[in-house]
Amino acid sequence: MIFSKATAARRAENGEWLTEVQPGWDIGGNANGGYLLALAGRAMANAAERPDVASLTAHYLRPGIPGPHRLQANVAKTGRRFTTVQGTLTGEKPVLSLVGSFTDHAETTDDRSVMLMPPIDLPDPDRCIKIEATDTFPPPVMGKVDLRLHPDDSFYDGPSGTPQMRGWVRLLDDEPLDSVALLLISDIFPPTVFNANFNVAWVPTLELTVHVRNRPVPGWLRCEFTSRFVTGGFVEEDGLMWDENDTLVAQSRQIALLPRD
Amino acid sequence: MIFSKATAARRAENGEWLTEVQPGWDIGGNANGGYLLALAGRAMANAAERPDVASLTAHYLRPGIPGPHRLQANVAKTGRRFTTVQGTLTGEKPVLSLVGSFTDHAETTDDRSVMLMPPIDLPDPDRCIKIEATDTFPPPVMGKVDLRLHPDDSFYDGPSGTPQMRGWVRLLDDEPLDSVALLLISDIFPPTVFNANFNVAWVPTLELTVHVRNRPVPGWLRCEFTSRFVTGGFVEEDGLMWDENDTLVAQSRQIALLPRD
Repeated sequence: MIFSKATAARRAENGEWLTEVQPGWDIGGNANGGYLLALAGRAMANAAERPDVASLTAHYLRPGIPGPHRLQANVAKTGRRFTTVQGTLTGEKPVLSLVGSFTDHAETTDDRSVMLMPPIDLPDPDRCIKIEATDTFPPPVMGKVDLRLHPDDSFYDGPSGTPQMRGWVRLLDDEPLDSVALLLISDIFPPTVFNANFNVAWVPTLELTVHVRNRPVPGWLRCEFTSRFVTGGFVEEDGLMWDENDTLVAQSRQIALLPRD
Repeated sequence: MIFSKATAARRAENGEWLTEVQPGWDIGGNANGGYLLALAGRAMANAAERPDVASLTAHYLRPGIPGPHRLQANVAKTGRRFTTVQGTLTGEKPVLSLVGSFTDHAETTDDRSVMLMPPIDLPDPDRCIKIEATDTFPPPVMGKVDLRLHPDDSFYDGPSGTPQMRGWVRLLDDEPLDSVALLLISDIFPPTVFNANFNVAWVPTLELTVHVRNRPVPGWLRCEFTSRFVTGGFVEEDGLMWDENDTLVAQSRQIALLPRD
């Protein structure tokens, strides 16, 4: 099932949208956090009647288990350029608590630009490590995208010591990227802390925010996820996503928990 | 009026908290975005019955005008360590749409640490530029804190060309800092783009997220706000706040709009 179908939602009543967490987008049975954000984000964009995400935040309450879910959307304001929506994604119990603003990026042209950081340098995709999904590790959701990890960040033989993950990613079957797809991509790479010298098997996301700057052109996304500060039992993970035109299409930040050993 | 009183809230009915946007915390009559976030955040922490902010996001719908406001708080989940709350701050109309998770930072001790970036280097506070508020520029809210700007970032004689603001800040009258005060501080510095070579007089915030990592000890906060990417008509502003023990106490990111000339 292609990504757009796996995140489809249809309108019900009372501001509710019906959607379904699909099997296969999971890590050990629990849906990937980026996939859940995309599922909720698509329904919220529909509710906002705007085609693009400008900024979306989710707090993660419980794991997402495959099956029917509903997205309750409450429009807080419809403005000239943005529509802001509060959302709750619920399966048997609430899964995500969200707030986001939606827009039409085709209307936002502005040629003022400061780029203090160029797109990261990466080897060509066929010189990176192609991640092949398995039932266990890497988890099934990794098979839903074509992900090529920078050879220096491949942690299979042990952590690099630098908590970052760099690489290329695209949807399967040349499915075009929309701004909702960037929500998936924002959490599709392995956790940066797999390259830190900690013995952690998972880092549950407390919160994930994605700012979409521009619609991506079709093709590969050039991505970088980095962590600078592990402290207080939390770690942030900052993402940058560039399209094939070297346009910055999204920034993300999540705050995650370091489980006890 | 000290900060804690200027952000006080009392419980009403139906999950509502009554609060008041105080005069003097404004920029040209509109309340500062960090002050509004703190006002809402304190009421939401009260509703969560947790003393500290872990992560809080607001989308800015309309200016905050001095006068009575109410904060509608809906608790989405009360967990072992976090309570997640959706909120709406409303004056005559809705002003902020929020979601946040609250915790007790005194319970979170974890000695695993990666700090890939040290606290920024700053001249001593008395060698920085003390910002004195005026009725016009700098705006009144600047008088509500003791803010010392890095001499290289003082834009009064023109932009430095690097969109950053570094400096020290503390509350007046040695009022202790709590995690809600960090919400104020996250938006109290002049916009970084005042040091970019753009002719912008204001940069309205679309969204602001603050992650509180640790409770600050009393005294100065060492702060850095930077922007790396102006593109698509948006600019992000990333903040780091360190306390006098060189502990990272908060990270912030906002996405703001570049108004047309």
